[in-house]
Amino acid sequence: MNEQAPAGPPAYLAAIGTELPGDPVDNAALAKALGVNEEWIEVFIGTKTRHFARDLASNTVRWSLADLCARAGARALDGPGPGPEDIDFVVLGTATPDTLMPATVNHVADQLGLDQVPTFQLQSGCAGAVQALSLARTMIASGEYRNGLVMGGDVCSKHLDLDRDLSGAAPGDIVNFVLFGDGAGAAVVSAEPCGERVALHRVLNRFTGLGREPGQIIEWFGLADRHEDRQALKEDYKAIEESVPVMAVEILWELLGDLDWDAEDLDYLLPPQLSGRMTARIFQELDVPTAREISCVADTGNNGNALPFLQTERLLGRMAAGEKALAVAIESSKWIKAGFALEKT
Amino acid sequence: MNEQAPAGPPAYLAAIGTELPGDPVDNAALAKALGVNEEWIEVFIGTKTRHFARDLASNTVRWSLADLCARAGARALDGPGPGPEDIDFVVLGTATPDTLMPATVNHVADQLGLDQVPTFQLQSGCAGAVQALSLARTMIASGEYRNGLVMGGDVCSKHLDLDRDLSGAAPGDIVNFVLFGDGAGAAVVSAEPCGERVALHRVLNRFTGLGREPGQIIEWFGLADRHEDRQALKEDYKAIEESVPVMAVEILWELLGDLDWDAEDLDYLLPPQLSGRMTARIFQELDVPTAREISCVADTGNNGNALPFLQTERLLGRMAAGEKALAVAIESSKWIKAGFALEKT
Repeated sequence: MNEQAPAGPPAYLAAIGTELPGDPVDNAALAKALGVNEEWIEVFIGTKTRHFARDLASNTVRWSLADLCARAGARALDGPGPGPEDIDFVVLGTATPDTLMPATVNHVADQLGLDQVPTFQLQSGCAGAVQALSLARTMIASGEYRNGLVMGGDVCSKHLDLDRDLSGAAPGDIVNFVLFGDGAGAAVVSAEPCGERVALHRVLNRFTGLGREPGQIIEWFGLADRHEDRQALKEDYKAIEESVPVMAVEILWELLGDLDWDAEDLDYLLPPQLSGRMTARIFQELDVPTAREISCVADTGNNGNALPFLQTERLLGRMAAGEKALAVAIESSKWIKAGFALEKT
Repeated sequence: MNEQAPAGPPAYLAAIGTELPGDPVDNAALAKALGVNEEWIEVFIGTKTRHFARDLASNTVRWSLADLCARAGARALDGPGPGPEDIDFVVLGTATPDTLMPATVNHVADQLGLDQVPTFQLQSGCAGAVQALSLARTMIASGEYRNGLVMGGDVCSKHLDLDRDLSGAAPGDIVNFVLFGDGAGAAVVSAEPCGERVALHRVLNRFTGLGREPGQIIEWFGLADRHEDRQALKEDYKAIEESVPVMAVEILWELLGDLDWDAEDLDYLLPPQLSGRMTARIFQELDVPTAREISCVADTGNNGNALPFLQTERLLGRMAAGEKALAVAIESSKWIKAGFALEKT
């Protein structure tokens, strides 16, 4: 029961592209805009900068999620692998679509000039980018598709209420305003080694939330309920702090076992990107001294489904032929274990 | 370019289950609750009844989308095919998730006692159920998975603003309140013929919206923008009335060509379920006199991603061995062509 058959031949990452909107916003600027303490952000979050699609000064939206994804996608399609004319399908993972309908992926396809291809948009938090890679790998393994454009992105600042006075807010509330950022990433995934020639050996995506309370909830509001004074973001930080490091270690060892790799085989490790502080702690607990850490959250903020692409872009800039990397991701909303294994061929 | 390889062996629908919340709401009751004209609904929409997860009298939410999907899923899992212990993955297609995070599919898995399986939630309008079937078929074709629980559902009444006075509203505005319903459906899809033994021969899911304005938009509101007095639902009825019948005919003939089937081979036709009136018109224009129509929208309202499952349930009750059926679905949001082909073995 629930046993997956051994994964077939790998798919390949041919090219990658990312987009971070506007200039980086540092802690001094963020603290000023929100009326919170700069040092508190430094110490308890450990994130130095992030990017926002919304302009803090004027409180206006500058870019949509579709805009960010289209820029990242264009960079990936301009890369060393297949181009737009070779793309057989498009997948986007996000927790924060521009609208419920149309799905944002279709606006991205439109901006990129793609047409007459299947499009899929996965609704998911941090695991969505990994789910998108998993779907791409499976579509290619089915033999029906050869090249896909896979994207992940989030515009968390859609929830950034700049009119709110945070000077007396509790830390558990402020954290929702200082943890997140916006961004997008994209990869061209192919059936054959081409471009960057990085084999995507295995993708883990597994619900493990039976009977567990959600660690994170993001609500949306419709016509009928949007005037209620409800909190849209809720997080159980205690549960996240307790569970995520343990789950990260479990994912690492499960993936290594599936792949028949030893921990010492790993040249790079891409840990979950919750915040600068949490990620540093998790990397320590993963305890693979031979593997170099590839992280971005201290510079980019937690921009959700963009993170695995931002990490992978940093990885590809360093990876040499024969080197191996593992990425670990966890969606604390309803406790999804996720991750993937890469090898430069 | 963009040519899919010939589809491999079929997957099989083993069992199906659906859920319509509460008692049917007739046009007299709906007209009274909204302050609109009952005969106008009869004549211009042609829908007789629909079901709502929200109670009209008390304006309270009785069931979530997760509740509806779990009930439909439980019925499918209780059916003649594989049971919960055999399920390797879960897919849900919806335009109206309960929350942005966690994805509703994970609450459904929790309610059904499923754990340690991949879950996917596709954000899509009317094409989402077809996309979910497509994903299931591809996952099975990859050889990595054997049985999946595939669901579609929508709670459109999340947008039903009962406090609003519609007595002077324009028809194009009222239609958003009288067209829709709530519901969910589920199917167990298997690699082998079992249970209902209905082969899923081919699934079409293709974005055709390059350069075209959306026909339908559903917005959501976050923390930062939810106090603005914006309209959440917008539809371009003229574009929908013009394009959907033409696209339906194109989908029919494309699927027949892909399958190498003649129109006369079709025993049943499942047309797009926009409204009682539009569906009747589209079925006429599809013009396959030998095929019997399988529709539900006049009884269920347009409940989005539940519709293909509600139609298929009606179909399975009538289908004899050797009979063939085609389903045609169109997402007018950004013009997705969708459909699938079934054959009872």
